[in-house]
Amino acid sequence: MSTMTTASNITAPTQFLEVGGTTYAYRRFGQGPGRPLLCLQHFTGTLDNWDPAVTDALALGREVILFDNAGVGRSSGNVPNTVSGMAQHALAFLDALNLSGCDVLGYSLGGMVALQMAQDRPAIFRRLILVGTAPRGGEDIMHLEKPSLARYLGDPRLQGYEVLQKIFFAPTESSQAAGAAFIGRLVQRKEDRDKPSGPEVAAAQVAAFRDWERYTGERFAELKGIRIPTLVVNGVHDEMIPVGNSLWLVENLPNAVLLVYPDSGHGSLFQHHESFTRHATAFLASDSPYAPY
Amino acid sequence: MSTMTTASNITAPTQFLEVGGTTYAYRRFGQGPGRPLLCLQHFTGTLDNWDPAVTDALALGREVILFDNAGVGRSSGNVPNTVSGMAQHALAFLDALNLSGCDVLGYSLGGMVALQMAQDRPAIFRRLILVGTAPRGGEDIMHLEKPSLARYLGDPRLQGYEVLQKIFFAPTESSQAAGAAFIGRLVQRKEDRDKPSGPEVAAAQVAAFRDWERYTGERFAELKGIRIPTLVVNGVHDEMIPVGNSLWLVENLPNAVLLVYPDSGHGSLFQHHESFTRHATAFLASDSPYAPY
Repeated sequence: MSTMTTASNITAPTQFLEVGGTTYAYRRFGQGPGRPLLCLQHFTGTLDNWDPAVTDALALGREVILFDNAGVGRSSGNVPNTVSGMAQHALAFLDALNLSGCDVLGYSLGGMVALQMAQDRPAIFRRLILVGTAPRGGEDIMHLEKPSLARYLGDPRLQGYEVLQKIFFAPTESSQAAGAAFIGRLVQRKEDRDKPSGPEVAAAQVAAFRDWERYTGERFAELKGIRIPTLVVNGVHDEMIPVGNSLWLVENLPNAVLLVYPDSGHGSLFQHHESFTRHATAFLASDSPYAPY
Repeated sequence: MSTMTTASNITAPTQFLEVGGTTYAYRRFGQGPGRPLLCLQHFTGTLDNWDPAVTDALALGREVILFDNAGVGRSSGNVPNTVSGMAQHALAFLDALNLSGCDVLGYSLGGMVALQMAQDRPAIFRRLILVGTAPRGGEDIMHLEKPSLARYLGDPRLQGYEVLQKIFFAPTESSQAAGAAFIGRLVQRKEDRDKPSGPEVAAAQVAAFRDWERYTGERFAELKGIRIPTLVVNGVHDEMIPVGNSLWLVENLPNAVLLVYPDSGHGSLFQHHESFTRHATAFLASDSPYAPY
């Protein structure tokens, strides 16, 4: 079963689980009265992109399970080019862990995967936290070619995490400072790191975003059946997946609260990590069948 | 100074304060370490429209001050036909109370008055809570003639508070049940009640809404200068002042968090009173210069 030699994403050992021919890399740490929290990651992100300020605070009250989907980090296999394909991998991983019940934190692409999992297997999660994400049929999802993003992604002076600081945070001095602090926390982990995602990971995930923007039939109809208590979180100046998508989520999910943070972009949960983990903890701790916490 | 014989809007005595020829009716109750909280009321609402489930919970940690603007309830004078005129009355009242500092809960029309006060007198409030309201230049503000509202307002079978239950709450069974409970709490106060607002109050306030929808120059520009930590709250199915207006508020106020409640309309703070007062209390208790709490 799980090893919890440490309760920080700075030091937690990476573990591996083989299911049906695919080996999944994951980390599992923390303890407490809460249900385990599965964390599903953003575009090209690996286990090393989870901010310890977020994961470690949440791990004070429950097990936190960070997961590399197929083809990402040190997980084997190919990156699916649909969200549905990613959801199948995540379900297979969860089944193999044999948990009796869990909650989920789905961030960006991970939020879409979480929604798909909840649709495919309605009883899989007790509570859902969706940050900086979009419903199927959402708009302006990860269009990296648009000028507000391309100017950083195409800037040869920006290397590695410097790009993340620009595109995950708002252009204000305060948000950029929070971005620098975030990067500083990510590089605290020195050993047993994932390999960064290459262009083939990005290409498949972008294909999944393009597919996710398409819908057939009544727009957002599938959300109306997801009655799990849900907390939706977004930065108000998110250029990667704009906040209007979060509004669509709560307009159509019947049991979802929306929390929007100021002065922040796609990485609002990292910028406002003290507030976010306080809200997430209160939300996860609630036993009410209703989302308001 | 204040009398606090009781800390409930069910029993707190109505007080009167004369300033410059206008007599203002108000109630003031509660105590604790927090700054006094001025509560500014919705369209046609009087002191008796404040839900004790909200006011009394907030009064556990601070003085709560409920206020009838000019021409409303037992306050003398004429109802101004602009938000700006209402803000002048509220400022005169606050000045006469001679508080050293206060916070504000502005609900619906009251939120517009609070915004105008913060614009006219930037140091007047330490923290701002805006529920079910809109910025100047907002859209679809209190159009009582639209079918989703007119069908209840024009229904002769609905009397008094029954109309409120229909238009402040969503049409679901759960929201209507919350509406019935809200009405049940409002009628607990038996003595010393305000007179209900008549058509002349409604007409002047509707004129103020029509004026508030108009703007000149850059839309929402005046919000960018209001740096007070602000909590914006809305029900996701608010037909009276739709949630898009709250999104505009947090997109343009530089220091504002948005909280949107599910399964609720204009009266989200009453429907979800336990959650709302918990969030409001945490927000008001924060000493941070930043809105996230």
